[in-house]
Amino acid sequence: MVERSLAEQAADDLCRIRENRPLIHNITNYVVMNVTANALLALGASPVMAHALEEVEEMTSLARALVLNIGTLSPSWIEAMIKAGKRARALGLPVVLDPVGAGATRLRTETARRIIEEVRPQVIRGNASEILALIGPLEGRGATKGVDSIHAPEEAAAGARQSAKALKTVLAVTGPTDWVTDGERLIRVQNGHEMMGRITGSGCTATALIGAFLAVNNDPLSAAVGALACYGLAGETAALKAEGPGTFQAAILDALYQMEENTLRAKARIERD
Amino acid sequence: MVERSLAEQAADDLCRIRENRPLIHNITNYVVMNVTANALLALGASPVMAHALEEVEEMTSLARALVLNIGTLSPSWIEAMIKAGKRARALGLPVVLDPVGAGATRLRTETARRIIEEVRPQVIRGNASEILALIGPLEGRGATKGVDSIHAPEEAAAGARQSAKALKTVLAVTGPTDWVTDGERLIRVQNGHEMMGRITGSGCTATALIGAFLAVNNDPLSAAVGALACYGLAGETAALKAEGPGTFQAAILDALYQMEENTLRAKARIERD
Amino acid sequence: MVERSLAEQAADDLCRIRENRPLIHNITNYVVMNVTANALLALGASPVMAHALEEVEEMTSLARALVLNIGTLSPSWIEAMIKAGKRARALGLPVVLDPVGAGATRLRTETARRIIEEVRPQVIRGNASEILALIGPLEGRGATKGVDSIHAPEEAAAGARQSAKALKTVLAVTGPTDWVTDGERLIRVQNGHEMMGRITGSGCTATALIGAFLAVNNDPLSAAVGALACYGLAGETAALKAEGPGTFQAAILDALYQMEENTLRAKARIERD
Repeated sequence: MVERSLAEQAADDLCRIRENRPLIHNITNYVVMNVTANALLALGASPVMAHALEEVEEMTSLARALVLNIGTLSPSWIEAMIKAGKRARALGLPVVLDPVGAGATRLRTETARRIIEEVRPQVIRGNASEILALIGPLEGRGATKGVDSIHAPEEAAAGARQSAKALKTVLAVTGPTDWVTDGERLIRVQNGHEMMGRITGSGCTATALIGAFLAVNNDPLSAAVGALACYGLAGETAALKAEGPGTFQAAILDALYQMEENTLRAKARIERD
Repeated sequence: MVERSLAEQAADDLCRIRENRPLIHNITNYVVMNVTANALLALGASPVMAHALEEVEEMTSLARALVLNIGTLSPSWIEAMIKAGKRARALGLPVVLDPVGAGATRLRTETARRIIEEVRPQVIRGNASEILALIGPLEGRGATKGVDSIHAPEEAAAGARQSAKALKTVLAVTGPTDWVTDGERLIRVQNGHEMMGRITGSGCTATALIGAFLAVNNDPLSAAVGALACYGLAGETAALKAEGPGTFQAAILDALYQMEENTLRAKARIERD
Repeated sequence: MVERSLAEQAADDLCRIRENRPLIHNITNYVVMNVTANALLALGASPVMAHALEEVEEMTSLARALVLNIGTLSPSWIEAMIKAGKRARALGLPVVLDPVGAGATRLRTETARRIIEEVRPQVIRGNASEILALIGPLEGRGATKGVDSIHAPEEAAAGARQSAKALKTVLAVTGPTDWVTDGERLIRVQNGHEMMGRITGSGCTATALIGAFLAVNNDPLSAAVGALACYGLAGETAALKAEGPGTFQAAILDALYQMEENTLRAKARIERD
């Protein structure tokens, strides 16, 4: 079942992001800081990175959404994420978590679980292996090949629906098809291009963009769906111009910047299960 | 009043940077390390990043200029900046400070003020909100939207002139027009393109390039003006080729690399107030 | 003497990297994390970055090779490199070391020497100044201009052969010509382009790619030679399309992605001394 209402919502959200330029506070990994900041700027949002325990709460207080990403963890960063996350929740700000590499090491799996328990993010976005490591039945360790998925999104979709309900969060399992669920609705987003798997940080960028959509949309499911459709569509556009992953990186930022709301409305491939 | 002498100086500085390839020591933020290193290389300088307390003084001793940028602070990095800054001053090396996000959090405002007091940088470059947070009358907290300015450079220009005099430094307030002052002279640089606001690290890159110009020019005002004219002109050139911020990022590095000294001399738009 | 067998090996290795997508664990510097991850992805490998003492051993255990790079050191990162390196050796996984800035500061020289002694990497890749700082007769301090070489690779080649024998490692001295030696064989790789010196992280990327080749090839000398020929050839291809270092960065990733095994076999310029 095609979900026109979610495509409409995505286009409206994109419009609001560009009007309001919401400040998005990112506590993220070293590898992708530059690219996610640039993607947020290209989309129309205003990114800021800050991780010191001495300032994270203040910075979160200025922001409209908080993005937590565990891609290059260390203990002080974990405490900063928890601290910023709690402040965000106290202020009613939305939080999105990217459990990068959950399932690969105990530190990552446990940190993701701790953030989920203590912060209660509105949205958790990961690849299938990462989400399976968090919601079982995997053991939560050694189940992920570094940060790349060894499972198809479909393998995680059914379990994600149950877990989303239990955790009262939206789970977004991304891959060739993205699956997004709030425990009730289970939505498929078909936009995207395989070249997105050949650039580092495409998952992390999707998470950051979800942060921007959450900043202007109170419904976490439609915000996540909209961000994924928008980023996937940018990937499709970029692939038409790119000769490889290097030119693709530039082209996908151009495509986010140039994305017209009408194009997003028309070309978002969003289906309800 | 058009300032031809400053355009001449900018072109001469660019020539000297390429001849001498000065080593520029950067203690900067995670988001922009790659892009500022690439900009310095494209210009013709030799960048190095080092932040460990155990080595910053040694690295500064090898360099011709020091760039301090507080964009992703934490306590040990602050101490490293102070330590390197003091060594630079003891050696007579120029220092430029980028007070990223001053006004957004107390940590950033206080760190910027501490560096100014303890290191006495020759040049401080920031957007209008950052500079206003440092020189008043703003309270120095909550006055900046993350790292983006909420003030026009013009709002900061007059106060900057007074403060530059009091602080015995050059203040560069950048934005659609850049204002640079040493407390006596107040210079406007009109080069630049709005796309520079759509890529992360354009302000940080301007600061790094000021470091390169300071390495070959003993007059901090003309060094700052020259760097801003050069980078702004590169932005203008890049905008002619770019289709969005992704291709713009690549094109501005190309433009810095290809910048001819005669072109900079002819197209620098530098005016005295 | 042209070494066809090494070109054959390089092409075979490239094929195996793409078939197996080996996980490469990188503990590397902030400046190049993004670009080396992207280069590994473009080549066909699967990169992961992890540096926390709490997880490095687990992550190394999942990987097929370990890349250690001292470009932005601090004490906890040094311990993480040693810990991961020892685990790699205990597991029989190959390790490659990039002694970025050895010779510039005592911390870097001593850290590189400590890693060599405690981890015994299969391959060490550096520029001539870095390698000379490690193997003498330089004093090991102040001998390098930041991270740029002030020596030609030829100056280091003879000493490298002796040192490689003594250290039981492969030494790769890169520059306009790359020299690679295991103490017996001394190989020259002539691929490359001068624009590679105008982008940050080209040496670090070469090291990361050596990690990928080591993951599929038990002979460290031929793995290092193959990676350097492959990356150098990508640089040659990229230079044909680039207008400067910005477009070159994108083009070299495209070229790695598009590199055909037959092209590498035919155009690798590998000679035995």
